[in-house]
Amino acid sequence: MTAGLETLSEHRCFDGVQGFYSHASEATDGPMRFGVFVPERAARAPCPVVYFLAGLECNEQTFAIKAGAQRVAASLGLVLVTSDTSPRATRYPGDDASWDFGIAASFYVDATQEPWRRSYRMDTYVTRELPALVERHFPVRPDARGIFGHSVGGHGALALALRNPERYRSVSALAPVVAPSQAPWGQKAFAAYLGDARDAWSAYDACDLVRARPLPGKLLIDVGTADKFLNTQLKPELFEAACADAGQPLALRRHAGYDHGYYFVSTFVADHLRFHHEALMLG
Amino acid sequence: MTAGLETLSEHRCFDGVQGFYSHASEATDGPMRFGVFVPERAARAPCPVVYFLAGLECNEQTFAIKAGAQRVAASLGLVLVTSDTSPRATRYPGDDASWDFGIAASFYVDATQEPWRRSYRMDTYVTRELPALVERHFPVRPDARGIFGHSVGGHGALALALRNPERYRSVSALAPVVAPSQAPWGQKAFAAYLGDARDAWSAYDACDLVRARPLPGKLLIDVGTADKFLNTQLKPELFEAACADAGQPLALRRHAGYDHGYYFVSTFVADHLRFHHEALMLG
Repeated sequence: MTAGLETLSEHRCFDGVQGFYSHASEATDGPMRFGVFVPERAARAPCPVVYFLAGLECNEQTFAIKAGAQRVAASLGLVLVTSDTSPRATRYPGDDASWDFGIAASFYVDATQEPWRRSYRMDTYVTRELPALVERHFPVRPDARGIFGHSVGGHGALALALRNPERYRSVSALAPVVAPSQAPWGQKAFAAYLGDARDAWSAYDACDLVRARPLPGKLLIDVGTADKFLNTQLKPELFEAACADAGQPLALRRHAGYDHGYYFVSTFVADHLRFHHEALMLG
Repeated sequence: MTAGLETLSEHRCFDGVQGFYSHASEATDGPMRFGVFVPERAARAPCPVVYFLAGLECNEQTFAIKAGAQRVAASLGLVLVTSDTSPRATRYPGDDASWDFGIAASFYVDATQEPWRRSYRMDTYVTRELPALVERHFPVRPDARGIFGHSVGGHGALALALRNPERYRSVSALAPVVAPSQAPWGQKAFAAYLGDARDAWSAYDACDLVRARPLPGKLLIDVGTADKFLNTQLKPELFEAACADAGQPLALRRHAGYDHGYYFVSTFVADHLRFHHEALMLG
């Protein structure tokens, strides 16, 4: 417990600490929970930090419980931060009526439409408020920030990094939604959060964003060929084409037989953390 | 799907397959679920197999989701089997009234008391029926079988291995209940499943069992010093004393600051799998 931060639980893990915390969020107008893994090495010097955004139906604990990432983060000396997937305090009619919209399905945008615009401001939360909080309370290097995510959280990581090239030095994604404007989950969410004007959608669509302004570094994306959402929601080939058009370096790996879940994530998370570590330790 | 076995789901994981299955169990008089991780190496030759027994409130998925064990099992070439923690099909009055008794809290005994004796026969299920099924359907070496568990599942692993030295070549436990006869969880469960006669309790109490007949090999037990159940339910010092009396080789490791949960389990699971692998590859 430090000022502004309530400790929900802390657990020793691979010689570091996996903690869960709550704080009063200004951006989302209510309490928000998040998780932080601090490796033992951070006791000696601040470490690079990687933010993970989870997918539909998940929360700040999902990745911490299921991915097996702490072992790798402990060994590399990375702090891991997991945010929740939506605000949960202010409630709206219909916000828990479907699994792909509302609670746990913020799509990491700043909503502009009523009623969501009051608290569904996850872009500001994830890119501004949470990093400022983490940098105040945990031993992280503010100049060495990476972001990655899974599924809709992969969309979040790609979109937020492409919108904020000065804030993230590395970005990757596992089974991401790369073109929300062209897939049912994204179309439903964007229409409600951002309205019907397609221009507003482009501001959060990784394919549109990368065409407008590619990033200097290489991106890493993993997908499984047995992912049941591959051809309907994820459509990695659209991002592959956009990156080729824009000259964006991209490593897109298709893994035979892997599905959408955390057995896939846990298999490749070490590659992602090594990718971020390499980028964050440079320069 | 093979005869006698229903495939619930299969997920590619670390180049192997994590599957969940159901079958009609004779011992427990109803359908039972279990999990199996098969490493890629098993496609070339049968592998040693390690059974994991989970604790209160868990099921056959808990360890597969939370422990991060598949990575290590894939690298060593071990098959991992997770059983459920109790029968669930036949229901009895009060079987879900408390978290430490009944559903998900079989304590891995063959119950002798009414009404439990009809289906709460997890000793026979875990030591006989499940291995026979696994050896029929999966590429495992029947001569290379180990067992371990967590919490009440650690009690199960120790008790069942000590009762069946010919069936298991290696045994270990994470935060186990070692003396159920001398701790509240065990006393409540044993009274209901086994009756009031303390002799029947000794037949499933690792401390009593090891004094009567130690095992030839060394046992490995890990506990965390911040485990909230350490002094009330686990009491590893009782097993340490029993092993010393009996001449049973034991490596009991106390890890500073670790608690009872899967952040602790995931930290040390690799040591346990290496311990089993070494024992199972010998001779």
